[in-house]
Amino acid sequence: MPILCVGSVALDSIETPFGKAERVLGGSAVYFSAAATLFNPVQVVGVVGDDYPFDDLRFLEQRGADLTGIEQKSGESFFWSGRYHFDLNTRDTLETRLGVFADFQPKIPESFRSARYVFLGNIDPALQHDVLDQVESPDVVACDTMNYWIEDSRELLLKLLKRVRVLIVNDEEVRQLAGEANLMKAARWVQAQGPEVVVVKKGEHGAILFADDWLFYVPGYPLEEVFDPTGAGDSFAGGFMGHLARARSLKAADFRRAMVYGSALGSFACEQFSVERLKELPESEVHARVEEFQRITAFEAHVPSGKHV
Amino acid sequence: MPILCVGSVALDSIETPFGKAERVLGGSAVYFSAAATLFNPVQVVGVVGDDYPFDDLRFLEQRGADLTGIEQKSGESFFWSGRYHFDLNTRDTLETRLGVFADFQPKIPESFRSARYVFLGNIDPALQHDVLDQVESPDVVACDTMNYWIEDSRELLLKLLKRVRVLIVNDEEVRQLAGEANLMKAARWVQAQGPEVVVVKKGEHGAILFADDWLFYVPGYPLEEVFDPTGAGDSFAGGFMGHLARARSLKAADFRRAMVYGSALGSFACEQFSVERLKELPESEVHARVEEFQRITAFEAHVPSGKHV
Repeated sequence: MPILCVGSVALDSIETPFGKAERVLGGSAVYFSAAATLFNPVQVVGVVGDDYPFDDLRFLEQRGADLTGIEQKSGESFFWSGRYHFDLNTRDTLETRLGVFADFQPKIPESFRSARYVFLGNIDPALQHDVLDQVESPDVVACDTMNYWIEDSRELLLKLLKRVRVLIVNDEEVRQLAGEANLMKAARWVQAQGPEVVVVKKGEHGAILFADDWLFYVPGYPLEEVFDPTGAGDSFAGGFMGHLARARSLKAADFRRAMVYGSALGSFACEQFSVERLKELPESEVHARVEEFQRITAFEAHVPSGKHV
Repeated sequence: MPILCVGSVALDSIETPFGKAERVLGGSAVYFSAAATLFNPVQVVGVVGDDYPFDDLRFLEQRGADLTGIEQKSGESFFWSGRYHFDLNTRDTLETRLGVFADFQPKIPESFRSARYVFLGNIDPALQHDVLDQVESPDVVACDTMNYWIEDSRELLLKLLKRVRVLIVNDEEVRQLAGEANLMKAARWVQAQGPEVVVVKKGEHGAILFADDWLFYVPGYPLEEVFDPTGAGDSFAGGFMGHLARARSLKAADFRRAMVYGSALGSFACEQFSVERLKELPESEVHARVEEFQRITAFEAHVPSGKHV
C-alpha cells in the first residue's frame, strides 16, 4: 500500500563544521522517500529542472519508489544553500533559488490517486489543497508546514487542517500556529482545528505525539557526531509514515512505534550529508537503533516497599 | 539512611505571568529537601539570617528532615528576586542579596558526618570541598554547580569532580564545563574527570543520565501550566537522590527509576510557587505520575514481519 508523497525535490549546497557538499540531493520529498522506502513503497510527486541529476534518485526506485510523478521541466531545479553554525542547532540560509519549483502545480498521476496514505511535504497550502482535491479518500493524510505559510496563508492552512489526520511540525511551528507558548496547549488547540494526531518535532530533544487522550514521547537519539541535520525532519516523517503504512494499522501501539522509527530515521539522516546515510542503510541497523531507543527509555515503575528505611 | 544536603536556604520573590510571590521559601537546600523527604530523611546544612521564617520549614521536620545543621546568624537571609518571561523558559534576575550566605562556612554536625549519601548544592566549590573534608566516606556524593563557578573556579571544580560520583547539572553547564557543544561528548569528557554518572537536566526537555556504558533518557513531564519553574532543578536532584537513598542500591535499574522520580518531582515543583506543591504532595500522586511517565514513553520494539506488503 504505497504512500503518496508530494514535496520539493531539490539540490542543496551545505556547509557544516565538518565539511562541504555541493549540489547534493535534497528537498522534503527526497528525504521523506529515502526514509520511508526502507519500509514501504512511495509514490513521489514533484518537479525538477533539466539540470537535475535524476539518475541519483534511482536508488529510490530500487527500494520501491515510483518516480513517474516527478515532472522534469526546462529550467533550473530548486536550489538551497546553507551554512550551519558550530553547535549545528542554528544555520544561515545563504541562497534560495526556487527555479521551476516556483510554478509547481502538483499533478497526481491517475495510478497514484487511490493512495491510502498521503504525505504533504512543506509546500504552499494552496497546493496541498490541490493535491487532496485530486486523491480519492485516503485513510491517513499527514502534512508538514512552516512559519512562512503560518504567517502568510493562515486561512488556507486552517482549512487544510480540517482535511488532515496527522500534522507533523516542529515546536516553534505549533506554538506559532496556535499563538500559545505552552506546547501541550498549543497541540490541543491544533487538534481542535481538525488533526486527530499532532506530532511535534523538537530536533535533538526528540518528538511528542499528541493523540485524543494520550501522548507519547520519543527522545532524539544521542549522537556523538551530528554531521549534517538537513532533512532530519522529513526523514522523521518518512520513518513515521513508512512504518505506519507498513503496519496497515492505526492502533496506539503502531503510532508509538512509528514515532520511534521516525526518530531513528531522523538521527540516521544527520550522520552524513544529504541522503547518503539513508541510501545504504540496512534494515538491521534501523531495528538495532529502535531497540536501543528502548534500552535508553525503559524503566520499571515498581518502587521498593518501605519508606524512610 | 539520611542524605546530607548542603546548599542555600533562601527567600525568593518571584513574578511569573500567573502572579507574584513575596519572600517565599527558596534555595537549593530547601527545594532539594522538600522533594527528597518524600522518600528519605535528609540532614540539612545551611545558613539563614534572623529574618528567616524558620517555622515555615517545620513541615520538612515532619517528613524526617533534620534541620539542626541550619545555622541562624544575625543579619539578612539570602534573598533572590526574579521575573519570568511569557514563555517561562527565560527569566531576569531583579535582585540578589547574599546576606549571611556571603560568609557561609558549612559546619557539618558530628551526627551528620557518617552520611552515606551527600548532595552538594550549587555553592562555591571551595565550600563543597570543605564539606567533603568533614564527612567520613560516603557511598554517593552528588553535586551541582553553575556557570559562575565553571568560569571563575575551574581548577577547584575540576578537583572536586574527582571526589564526586554523580554530577547533576544542566545542558549549558555541561557544555561549558567540557568546552564541547555536543552533549554526548561533553558528558563523556566530564566522566573522564571523575564522576561515574553525569546527569544532564534539560528543563522542559527532560534529562539524560550518562553512566559508564549506558545512558537513560527521561522526558520532562508535559505540563499544561508551568506556574513557576524556580527550584525545578533542585527538586529533580531531591527526587533523584531521595529515591536512590531509599532504594539502598545503585544498580542501573535504581538509577533509571531515580531519573523518573527526579523528573516527576521537578514537574511538581513547577505547579505552584515555592515549595507549596511539594509540601502537600501525597506519595500516591508521585507514584501515579511515575506510572504516567511509563505510559508516555513505553513502546514495543517488535515490528510486524513482511516488508513492502
